[in-house]
Amino acid sequence: MSQKAGRQSVLLDPSPYLTSAAAVVGPMEGKGPLGEDFDLVYPDLRIKEKSFEAAERKMLQEACLLALKKQDLRLGDIDYFLAGDLLNQITVSGYSAAALGIPFFGLYGACSTLTLALSWGAMLVAGGFAQKVLAATSSHNCSAERQYRYPTEYGFQRPRQAQWTVTGAAAAVIGAAGEGPRITAATIGKVVDMGEKDAYGLGAAMAPAAASTLIRHFEDLQRRPDYYDLIVTGDLGQIGAALLRKLLARSGYCLEDNYNDCGLMIYNPELQDVGAGGSGCACSGVVVLGHLYRRMKEGELKRILVVSTGALHSPTTLGQGESIPGVAHAVALEI
Amino acid sequence: MSQKAGRQSVLLDPSPYLTSAAAVVGPMEGKGPLGEDFDLVYPDLRIKEKSFEAAERKMLQEACLLALKKQDLRLGDIDYFLAGDLLNQITVSGYSAAALGIPFFGLYGACSTLTLALSWGAMLVAGGFAQKVLAATSSHNCSAERQYRYPTEYGFQRPRQAQWTVTGAAAAVIGAAGEGPRITAATIGKVVDMGEKDAYGLGAAMAPAAASTLIRHFEDLQRRPDYYDLIVTGDLGQIGAALLRKLLARSGYCLEDNYNDCGLMIYNPELQDVGAGGSGCACSGVVVLGHLYRRMKEGELKRILVVSTGALHSPTTLGQGESIPGVAHAVALEI
Repeated sequence: MSQKAGRQSVLLDPSPYLTSAAAVVGPMEGKGPLGEDFDLVYPDLRIKEKSFEAAERKMLQEACLLALKKQDLRLGDIDYFLAGDLLNQITVSGYSAAALGIPFFGLYGACSTLTLALSWGAMLVAGGFAQKVLAATSSHNCSAERQYRYPTEYGFQRPRQAQWTVTGAAAAVIGAAGEGPRITAATIGKVVDMGEKDAYGLGAAMAPAAASTLIRHFEDLQRRPDYYDLIVTGDLGQIGAALLRKLLARSGYCLEDNYNDCGLMIYNPELQDVGAGGSGCACSGVVVLGHLYRRMKEGELKRILVVSTGALHSPTTLGQGESIPGVAHAVALEI
Repeated sequence: MSQKAGRQSVLLDPSPYLTSAAAVVGPMEGKGPLGEDFDLVYPDLRIKEKSFEAAERKMLQEACLLALKKQDLRLGDIDYFLAGDLLNQITVSGYSAAALGIPFFGLYGACSTLTLALSWGAMLVAGGFAQKVLAATSSHNCSAERQYRYPTEYGFQRPRQAQWTVTGAAAAVIGAAGEGPRITAATIGKVVDMGEKDAYGLGAAMAPAAASTLIRHFEDLQRRPDYYDLIVTGDLGQIGAALLRKLLARSGYCLEDNYNDCGLMIYNPELQDVGAGGSGCACSGVVVLGHLYRRMKEGELKRILVVSTGALHSPTTLGQGESIPGVAHAVALEI
């Protein structure tokens, strides 16, 4: 039975359920406009762990355990753990997989990890390979900044186009049966490299990939943007989101008020100094699995399209003069 | 239709075909005992590229194009590209995905990437999500050494238990129809951390994960080791392979002469100074998709079990005093 639709998409039949979701965040995200929708707001960035990296691991594991707890599930009920993060060798995910003891699919999609994990997890369930999987991702402002740019302790001044890496983690249980929003379709993105080289301007580097995936999604499934109550990209920020609107308009797809970007939703730019918006794996992670999941369960949103966006460079490739490739994967959630 | 078998395994029905495979290697691997079975032996490690990292990318792309060419396939015939490597942010795979222009699933499993990609690719095809996928992985001695330990130019002395990172890349086309060995089953591993902290003793760190996955595979599918003509682990090397035999014997599974390790097959230890054996994503990559694939096509081997093994640490986690978690995924190939 083919589940393929068009060139890069799948229509999932039967559509798996997002039966549970949890999101934990750092203090700054807790003070943002969506603060009420997160399951746990940590009071500080180290949370008594010996390093920021260890704190990020603790957050990821906490999000996973909370997602299980909400459905009275135990670790042994989960067939596979799908996770990825920003750190070299995705060590947050790998060490967490050891701690959780669930068979592990390690993913890398930078900040597109949420929809990579949800797509993959939905296919595992729809294909009959699993009954229940746990999909998760995380990022931490201090572990990411010091790996990609400068340790935050340096107080390095950031240019205006820079975005703020979200501290937090999100996890979801995807099941063959249950209640909740269903993952009805997914579009796997191509990697698009338009030659952008500014490590602080990742929104601009990722926007062409988001446009590519969205256009493919609409064409593969013969849908218009107004099919969805809400289309959210992951972390394009102000500059990337504006660029995406332009790129889509050129292809005949006008994004109206039903478009937003998780990086523009998570902070209050008038009160919080976050540059062009939020970023990081946890940006779409906590906005979708914390905030939007609740809005869907409460009936405010019925159909949403999540397009998490990732920049696939490394400090090594930038140092070697390479440009920044972007990728975006789309997942349709319907209730 | 459930394709799940036991706790961590799937029995793929219909079983996808490994319709094409290619392996390219560096000069040292070309001089080893399997040299004749590789599609291309590069004369040096830089191959006229501006960096070792760029050379590794070129090797990965070359392996992909060779695998396609053998079946007269074009890039547009492939639904998804599944790849991962050892470099931070898997940049070899990500930049190659941009160059190839195929929708991309980014994976991270360190040296277990081959069987992670083959498992996931087989599920995509068996589940009806794709007709043809391209699974690939790579490693390069110089890019890996300088990231994980010291730049090779330093001439740092290596302890005896150290292994030699294989330079090369391997790619396979997995299709719903065609000819060649079939991927009949896969077992997804748990991450196992026994507290090993020696960054030069990765074989020992990974052996418990290989044991865990093998035992699970045998129990899930009710098979004994003698079901297979050959069982190969990825890169346990001398120390890890001996440890694996002991761990399995304790659980009642004696590995006989039908067990080998790709890290022990690829070099000639009497003529080549490789410490405890080969390692790296390309180790099982080129041994399986170069050498063993040919042996299966020629009828010498009918059933093999490949268990690629990965160490999921990073230099950062080791520097922070963490131990080295291992993972192993198993794929059964039958013709």
